[in-house]
Amino acid sequence: MGFVAVYLSEPLLGGFVTGSSLTIITSQMKYLLGLKIPRHEGVGSFILTWVDLFRHIRNTNICDLLTSLVALAIIVPVKELNERYKERLKAPFPIELLVVIAATLISHYFDFERRYKAAVCGDIPTGFRKPTVPDFSLFPSLALDALPIAVIGFAMTVSLAEIFGKKHGYAVSANQEMIAIGMCNLIPSFFYCFASSAALTKTLLKESTGSQTQVSGLVTSLVLLLVLLWISPLFYSLQTSILGVVTIVNLRGGLRRFRDTPRMWQLSKLDTAVWWATMLCSTLVTTEIGLLVGVCFALLCIIFRTQRPRATLLGRVRDREVYEDQAAYKQLSSISNIKIFRFECSLYYANKDYFKAVLYQKTGLNPVLLAASLGNRARPEPGSSRGCCGCPRQGRSRAESPPGDACAPSPDMHTLILDCGAMQFIDTVGLSALKETHHDYEEVGVQVLLANCNPSIRQRLREGGWAGRAGGAGGQLAFHSIHDAVQFAESRRRGDSRDKRAAPPEPEEQQDFQVSL
Amino acid sequence: MGFVAVYLSEPLLGGFVTGSSLTIITSQMKYLLGLKIPRHEGVGSFILTWVDLFRHIRNTNICDLLTSLVALAIIVPVKELNERYKERLKAPFPIELLVVIAATLISHYFDFERRYKAAVCGDIPTGFRKPTVPDFSLFPSLALDALPIAVIGFAMTVSLAEIFGKKHGYAVSANQEMIAIGMCNLIPSFFYCFASSAALTKTLLKESTGSQTQVSGLVTSLVLLLVLLWISPLFYSLQTSILGVVTIVNLRGGLRRFRDTPRMWQLSKLDTAVWWATMLCSTLVTTEIGLLVGVCFALLCIIFRTQRPRATLLGRVRDREVYEDQAAYKQLSSISNIKIFRFECSLYYANKDYFKAVLYQKTGLNPVLLAASLGNRARPEPGSSRGCCGCPRQGRSRAESPPGDACAPSPDMHTLILDCGAMQFIDTVGLSALKETHHDYEEVGVQVLLANCNPSIRQRLREGGWAGRAGGAGGQLAFHSIHDAVQFAESRRRGDSRDKRAAPPEPEEQQDFQVSL
Repeated sequence: MGFVAVYLSEPLLGGFVTGSSLTIITSQMKYLLGLKIPRHEGVGSFILTWVDLFRHIRNTNICDLLTSLVALAIIVPVKELNERYKERLKAPFPIELLVVIAATLISHYFDFERRYKAAVCGDIPTGFRKPTVPDFSLFPSLALDALPIAVIGFAMTVSLAEIFGKKHGYAVSANQEMIAIGMCNLIPSFFYCFASSAALTKTLLKESTGSQTQVSGLVTSLVLLLVLLWISPLFYSLQTSILGVVTIVNLRGGLRRFRDTPRMWQLSKLDTAVWWATMLCSTLVTTEIGLLVGVCFALLCIIFRTQRPRATLLGRVRDREVYEDQAAYKQLSSISNIKIFRFECSLYYANKDYFKAVLYQKTGLNPVLLAASLGNRARPEPGSSRGCCGCPRQGRSRAESPPGDACAPSPDMHTLILDCGAMQFIDTVGLSALKETHHDYEEVGVQVLLANCNPSIRQRLREGGWAGRAGGAGGQLAFHSIHDAVQFAESRRRGDSRDKRAAPPEPEEQQDFQVSL
Repeated sequence: MGFVAVYLSEPLLGGFVTGSSLTIITSQMKYLLGLKIPRHEGVGSFILTWVDLFRHIRNTNICDLLTSLVALAIIVPVKELNERYKERLKAPFPIELLVVIAATLISHYFDFERRYKAAVCGDIPTGFRKPTVPDFSLFPSLALDALPIAVIGFAMTVSLAEIFGKKHGYAVSANQEMIAIGMCNLIPSFFYCFASSAALTKTLLKESTGSQTQVSGLVTSLVLLLVLLWISPLFYSLQTSILGVVTIVNLRGGLRRFRDTPRMWQLSKLDTAVWWATMLCSTLVTTEIGLLVGVCFALLCIIFRTQRPRATLLGRVRDREVYEDQAAYKQLSSISNIKIFRFECSLYYANKDYFKAVLYQKTGLNPVLLAASLGNRARPEPGSSRGCCGCPRQGRSRAESPPGDACAPSPDMHTLILDCGAMQFIDTVGLSALKETHHDYEEVGVQVLLANCNPSIRQRLREGGWAGRAGGAGGQLAFHSIHDAVQFAESRRRGDSRDKRAAPPEPEEQQDFQVSL
């Protein structure tokens, strides 16, 4: 299952984190204002909560509001300083802890709770509860929320592990991490615990203070135990607004990413679109749907990129065997009567129409229209398998057909070379498209050659019957390089310009390293 | 909106048609047996209907069953003959019409309805109903069913139009067809009509009988009008089982595709998987969900193909500038100390980990582990920007760093050439992966060169700061061909084997056609 993390790209996670931050900040705002409004959940909770906030804003508790503002004014600058000088500091200055302690003392001695009706934490239970089996009746209602927590928690853990694994030179197994984090969440579920995953800041801190083994975890746990058992009742008078401020301050990072979006847009428009889509969906709808939409949208973007790929005519680089894009480079020489077309993507069902359209447009020759205008008008028998000039596609030998000159009206090319170097795969639909192209151009007297096919495409061509088609230039497999194809086309033209359908001389260069095919 | 049809691949439509055929055949079975069972709809209706059929099978009406069997025995063979000799027949023999007429007469004169309690059509209303505005209250419950009908109908119409457009040599505009079919369904909705779309058989028939203009539609309509107004009451005694048989017989085509799946599997496993997934979902769940699942699954298959693409080391073809896959061809010569790695797919977030893994595996060198085992053990300062041997990545000149021999422990290569010829695009994550690769290999003394990048990747490299990185071999853009990169690497090794971090001599061949960049 470790493969799930693969689909969580950086822009997606970034948008999700920002969206979640906005959602959490929204849910904390009522504590900052000391308002008592119901908690909204599900679709649209973001907007509903803000509507409620503004509707009840008259009831703001001035004491809570002032406390929040003061706390914000203290914590934010100190945390910014912490970040700026983090390289010089062994550990960041624990400003939140100080503020919490100070606020508790002030609230206690000035009795904010009774005097100003400030919301305080109240009684905090200490000690442990008896371990019990989790309440199964809650599972259906929690499952949907648990899924993104698990996926995100896992993805964060693995990426953290990889960062440190890289630093210290060891390999990380995603599946092992998954089992570990699964156990970390499974066993504590009997003890009323939070879902756990790796935390960047804490890991960095431990690494920088020299922790090497799991013993450091034992020390941390003992300190926490102390707090749980004896210290927490001391926080009775702590205002909930202070807790809200601490939460919000620590989520600033998510908001700061808004600043990065213009730069991101310059680098990649699609990545930015993914970021915004994920962010908006996880804010305005729900976080789970936001994550799902983000994953789907990011995958769709990959598909979009392949739907209208670059497609260009190539020209030859002077005195070399290299062929390059005529649109991007000057000083390339075209080859008379030969067009070389490069489609920079795998050919499959969703771009086959585009392939044909752009091929016809770039070569300036639509063989279907040409064949129809030449041949079919004269012989409109429906359903016949005759092509232009009535030459049958198969079954009859060339000798019986009408004289060749009527059959070769083709404008300024006799050969079309398709450079398949950038095609990773072709599916069955793509193969049909190639075959149709081959057939359509043959109808108007243009031979179609393939070049640069990779082994898997060659195999597909062989199995799909490209090689098995009735004789002619299509009968052979593809050429290894464009140059081979060009040489073959030129030599054939030169050698026998009239009897051009003779069995093609297999180019020598191709044979000598085609041994294992 | 014409773009929707692009996502409906052939295997997808095939699976959908078979799934729908199964669903419809299931819904007709009760008429064949003369059973009265409620109609199931929604998820699982296929299974529920079959369960009901077997539960009530004792109540089968023998008269209906016999009629069905006789009708099947007559219609199927004649239709098969029709198909076999369709080229010799002007129009197929109208066996269904004959059977319907004969069955009506028999049922009427032998009074099947009263004597055997056979289910008959009963009163069929004639004439037209008053045109009314469609009932808007039904819209919510119909919308979900209407969507796939609209999409499939449109896709069928466009593909039919393209088949005949190609035959007669005219271009088809998908958007124009969409408007046409939209009007054909919008206006009749005021007259209690069926949803309409193009039908293959009827179009073929009309084309083969020489129809050229829309006048033929007028003739067809007049005949239908005749039936509607005066003839239909004559079918009072027609058994519904006969109608069921006619429906089922015409859906045989969908079932016949099961026979094609083994051949399909040989040609393309993924296409077959799409076919089965769509078929099973549209049968067992609902047709709409089946279509949706099919579209998503087909797109996911495209993604799957790009996640673990072929990746190979290339070798040089003797005496030529061509480099080919060492795994697929024999007699290729490797170049000493240079490895050429080809990744046959765009590099993006979902395959970047695979890219690194397979690169390390093929080259037999994991630079991260090597660098860590050499350098980091000695100097474990956390967060430092130092690489192996403590050579700083930037800011200090080469002269200050420790002697080079400790820094070049690399096994059997000094240059890694990445052939990007098959990459259509790289996203920001892919770019980072390339940069990391470059950096990691540089740490262990291996220079990384790119070759064969297309113009859009070059631009991405430029914008993303590949060229801007501190000096060295990574400072330049990519080479046009693998051969250029190999020559550059060899000349640099030969020329100055010690002072290897000098500014790289820009290869001459590259310059002379890099004018417009």
